[in-house]
Amino acid sequence: MENFKQKLHNISCFVFDVDGVLTDGSLILLQTGEQARTMNIRDGYALQLAVKKGYRIVIISGGKSEAVKTRLNGLGIEDVFLGIEDKISTLKNVISKNNLVTENILYMGDDLPDIAPMKLCGIASCPADAATEIKEISIYVSDKKGGEGCVRDVIEQTMRLHGKWGY
Amino acid sequence: MENFKQKLHNISCFVFDVDGVLTDGSLILLQTGEQARTMNIRDGYALQLAVKKGYRIVIISGGKSEAVKTRLNGLGIEDVFLGIEDKISTLKNVISKNNLVTENILYMGDDLPDIAPMKLCGIASCPADAATEIKEISIYVSDKKGGEGCVRDVIEQTMRLHGKWGY
Amino acid sequence: MENFKQKLHNISCFVFDVDGVLTDGSLILLQTGEQARTMNIRDGYALQLAVKKGYRIVIISGGKSEAVKTRLNGLGIEDVFLGIEDKISTLKNVISKNNLVTENILYMGDDLPDIAPMKLCGIASCPADAATEIKEISIYVSDKKGGEGCVRDVIEQTMRLHGKWGY
Amino acid sequence: MENFKQKLHNISCFVFDVDGVLTDGSLILLQTGEQARTMNIRDGYALQLAVKKGYRIVIISGGKSEAVKTRLNGLGIEDVFLGIEDKISTLKNVISKNNLVTENILYMGDDLPDIAPMKLCGIASCPADAATEIKEISIYVSDKKGGEGCVRDVIEQTMRLHGKWGY
Repeated sequence: MENFKQKLHNISCFVFDVDGVLTDGSLILLQTGEQARTMNIRDGYALQLAVKKGYRIVIISGGKSEAVKTRLNGLGIEDVFLGIEDKISTLKNVISKNNLVTENILYMGDDLPDIAPMKLCGIASCPADAATEIKEISIYVSDKKGGEGCVRDVIEQTMRLHGKWGY
Repeated sequence: MENFKQKLHNISCFVFDVDGVLTDGSLILLQTGEQARTMNIRDGYALQLAVKKGYRIVIISGGKSEAVKTRLNGLGIEDVFLGIEDKISTLKNVISKNNLVTENILYMGDDLPDIAPMKLCGIASCPADAATEIKEISIYVSDKKGGEGCVRDVIEQTMRLHGKWGY
Repeated sequence: MENFKQKLHNISCFVFDVDGVLTDGSLILLQTGEQARTMNIRDGYALQLAVKKGYRIVIISGGKSEAVKTRLNGLGIEDVFLGIEDKISTLKNVISKNNLVTENILYMGDDLPDIAPMKLCGIASCPADAATEIKEISIYVSDKKGGEGCVRDVIEQTMRLHGKWGY
Repeated sequence: MENFKQKLHNISCFVFDVDGVLTDGSLILLQTGEQARTMNIRDGYALQLAVKKGYRIVIISGGKSEAVKTRLNGLGIEDVFLGIEDKISTLKNVISKNNLVTENILYMGDDLPDIAPMKLCGIASCPADAATEIKEISIYVSDKKGGEGCVRDVIEQTMRLHGKWGY
């Protein structure tokens, strides 16, 4: 935990998975074949604030939903990568294209496809209800579940540390 | 708490935020770009009753949803201000236009944009799952979460005190 | 509780409120003005079974939703009264029209408009999260919340006692 | 529990009910008469992985929803039997048509119509919130509720035992 707090000083970029991190992991199945997802308004507030204060937010998800893209773009997030099977390649591309340093990146994921990209980043973190393997490699496990404020939790802690949290 | 009960005697106007107060903070993302919100039926019953018994209900929200407006108007609430970035200006306008006295106003909010308008009102209150800063400045923290009866809680307590609660 | 078990022997008719009893009290607000409600599949199974075994099920609700009517009719329930402001009149009409005896009726409600009709029936019962006044006049408070199995609870207990529960 | 672990070695086929097992038991009622169901993303991940690694997944449900079929087919599951009143006949047909051995089948159900087919299979299991009768005949009761990871739980345990779990 002390390790986490220390590493938090370096964070200027957040990478989030969608399902089970930005959402509560539920899929509402509609007759049209549409799968509606559920996000959290206080996570959204923190994401919007982080973008405004100059943090880079990157979204990498295996799922593919226009509704998710619309919501995240609306919060000011431009790097939204959906329908990604090989997350680590996408992450490496983002890093090299923007000259990012891995120590500056906090990654939050919840399931097996997140293992490889998580290991690449300065901070590996996860929601309270992440898969076993994910919890094992995370240096920070939020006390909030996916879709219930885990994203807000890591953003808020980081921005407070940097003196950037506030209205 | 004693302070809260005492101040409750003066309340004739309630100001509520929408997301995380009147809703559970969830956003259901639909393919059309629509963001569906979830409210609580027992909150609705209390709001309707308060309007009938002559209390003024004011809604001030940063979000903008026709569905929310439809629901709240249907409950008899006329002062529904949505898409508001600067909540304190809106509140001040409502106050001056209707010659309200701040001691008579109970405000319930859950996140940073509510801080300034909350401080203006006789009673600052919040749901059980409000942001840290909000809890700190609230003289009453409901044991109910947003969308799970926190609105009913403050309305019911007030109306009971005034002998106006009941079918 | 002993009183409840004893009175349960006489029950051949169940009266249920919709919002907060058959539903979890949530209203999902859609752009069209539609308010989607959420019911529970195991409640539905019990309702269907009760109808098949000859129990009378009566639904009386202040709300008015075609979706609710469709669902309940689909379970075999014919007496579905929606948009009712004066529940006790509706209940009295049902009773006289069908020559029912009040001792044979179990009523489950959750909020103020249910008080008067509840008092008329042999058993007054409610979900775990009912309003204070309702809990006070209920001889049985289910340990299940609205929309989470409270309806199943009272139907299952009754049918077990009568030796009619089972596939 | 030891019995369960031992029997798990033989499992090569999973049979799941839909409502209350693959879903959280909720039905969202829409004006069109549509009943939207809610599934879990981590269950879906496990189902997809099991199919890829050669396990047979069979779905038998009393309900009938195109949305459910679309979702399950999308995960690679072909044996999706919906609108089934007599589950045991369907299961027997699947068994004989594919020359399955009952000892190799794990069944997870939550309510009365699952009793007969459950008894036929090598392992009878259920979610944490299953009906009383189902819990009584289950040799394994998951600590996860329906729609909250009970399906993932049994698949993950089986595949770990077989050394097949992983990305």
